[in-house]
Amino acid sequence: MQIRPLGDRVVIKRIEAVETTKSGIVLPGAAKEKPQEAEIVAVGPGTEDVKMEVTVGDRVLFSKYSGTEVKIEDKEYIILKQEEILAVIEK
Amino acid sequence: MQIRPLGDRVVIKRIEAVETTKSGIVLPGAAKEKPQEAEIVAVGPGTEDVKMEVTVGDRVLFSKYSGTEVKIEDKEYIILKQEEILAVIEK
Amino acid sequence: MQIRPLGDRVVIKRIEAVETTKSGIVLPGAAKEKPQEAEIVAVGPGTEDVKMEVTVGDRVLFSKYSGTEVKIEDKEYIILKQEEILAVIEK
Amino acid sequence: MQIRPLGDRVVIKRIEAVETTKSGIVLPGAAKEKPQEAEIVAVGPGTEDVKMEVTVGDRVLFSKYSGTEVKIEDKEYIILKQEEILAVIEK
Amino acid sequence: MQIRPLGDRVVIKRIEAVETTKSGIVLPGAAKEKPQEAEIVAVGPGTEDVKMEVTVGDRVLFSKYSGTEVKIEDKEYIILKQEEILAVIEK
Amino acid sequence: MQIRPLGDRVVIKRIEAVETTKSGIVLPGAAKEKPQEAEIVAVGPGTEDVKMEVTVGDRVLFSKYSGTEVKIEDKEYIILKQEEILAVIEK
Amino acid sequence: MQIRPLGDRVVIKRIEAVETTKSGIVLPGAAKEKPQEAEIVAVGPGTEDVKMEVTVGDRVLFSKYSGTEVKIEDKEYIILKQEEILAVIEK
Repeated sequence: MQIRPLGDRVVIKRIEAVETTKSGIVLPGAAKEKPQEAEIVAVGPGTEDVKMEVTVGDRVLFSKYSGTEVKIEDKEYIILKQEEILAVIEK
Repeated sequence: MQIRPLGDRVVIKRIEAVETTKSGIVLPGAAKEKPQEAEIVAVGPGTEDVKMEVTVGDRVLFSKYSGTEVKIEDKEYIILKQEEILAVIEK
Repeated sequence: MQIRPLGDRVVIKRIEAVETTKSGIVLPGAAKEKPQEAEIVAVGPGTEDVKMEVTVGDRVLFSKYSGTEVKIEDKEYIILKQEEILAVIEK
Repeated sequence: MQIRPLGDRVVIKRIEAVETTKSGIVLPGAAKEKPQEAEIVAVGPGTEDVKMEVTVGDRVLFSKYSGTEVKIEDKEYIILKQEEILAVIEK
Repeated sequence: MQIRPLGDRVVIKRIEAVETTKSGIVLPGAAKEKPQEAEIVAVGPGTEDVKMEVTVGDRVLFSKYSGTEVKIEDKEYIILKQEEILAVIEK
Repeated sequence: MQIRPLGDRVVIKRIEAVETTKSGIVLPGAAKEKPQEAEIVAVGPGTEDVKMEVTVGDRVLFSKYSGTEVKIEDKEYIILKQEEILAVIEK
Repeated sequence: MQIRPLGDRVVIKRIEAVETTKSGIVLPGAAKEKPQEAEIVAVGPGTEDVKMEVTVGDRVLFSKYSGTEVKIEDKEYIILKQEEILAVIEK
């Protein structure tokens, strides 16, 4: 099953921030400080006014609470408009 | 009797999520977790600004509370603008 | 006396839903479940932006509370914009 | 003294509804049921976007509370935009 | 000193309504009933969207509370957009 | 250090109204009555929609509370859009 | 890792105002009076409607609370639209 967003919407998946210390110990408690990171899962076709600037796989920042949360096959996604994405994080 | 939506509106029918275990037992109690799935029942002609991107039979996600609930011949439908549909679920 | 709506407005008359049992008995108490049905009584000329899609006699669905109620010669009408009509019910 | 409304505004005068019984007795108490009827007193030149559809002398329906009440030479008028006029009553 | 309003603004001076009886006695107490009359004192150049329809000296009606009150050389003026002027009173 | 406002913004400096009596005595207490006067300190380049109508040195009236107060090198300025300037005072 | 803002957004870094007395003593307590200064860290490509007027390294003034705070690799940034930047401070 796949999700095809309409218009200038994208589907994103929130990234569970995991912090690893130098010794390799995972500190999940530190995750609370990065609530706005996500990965692009699907990109709509755009509209006459909006050209899509992101692609599947991009890591992005988005403002908390924007978009609509949906749950498909037990996984949680957020569907929002590209306008609500603030920036792409390049590695 | 048929419903013909005006402009860029569509008529959808909420999908009653039924969960079936491997042994085939239906678990209707699990239905509460997918409140935003629906099937397109009728599609308006669109407007000069909005081209219709969905067709009758599409399974779609829509944000809770959007649109207007109507009851025709004892069945409940929701009429909303295509803009309020978030994504199409492809099988 | 006739009502001529301006611009993209239409005049509608709420349909009093009457339920008839198989034996022909009218059950007006059941009427509360269809509050959004009406018949088009008059149609404005439209505007440069809005082409009229409904005609006099159409049975339509409209969202509760939209439009303005007026009383002319002891009959109640609702004047609203075509935009506020959700769909036409075809028989 | 005359009032010349600007742009797409019109000046209207609320019609005091008087009810006359068959025997000719006036029942002013019944007037409370028609609060939205008025006569067009003056019509603005319109704007580039709005062409005037009403003329002086037209009897119109308008939504209660729209417009601004003004008092000139002891008579009360309402100045509103043509947009706020719902329909013309034709006799 | 002169005031030059910008864009589609005008400067008006509220008219203190004075009522004179036939015997010539001024009744300033009656002034409370005409709070919306003013005289145009200065007219802006207009904008690409708004052509000025009033000229200095016009007596106009404006809706109470619109615009901004300013005090220059001990005189009170109101600066508002032409849009907020309802009508010109012609004598 | 200089401030360069972006787009259709201007930087203004509130004028401290000082009243001088004929004998030359300054009455700063009278200053409270002219809170909306300012001098233009810097003018943005304008935008495609907005052509700048004011120049550095102009004395202007602006509506109280509009714009954002900033403090640079211990001096207070207000940055606002030209749209928020009501009028130029010519001497 | 780099941040690439979308559309007409920019990424800024709040400047910690440090006050140095003539004798060279830093007075961080004085920092509270300049909360709106920042340095441009990244600039989006702009949109069809908005041409970018700032560049990386510009010192700018922005209105408090505008934009969204994000934290990347333990550093705090603010992402906002160029529209929310008031002025560039030139040295």
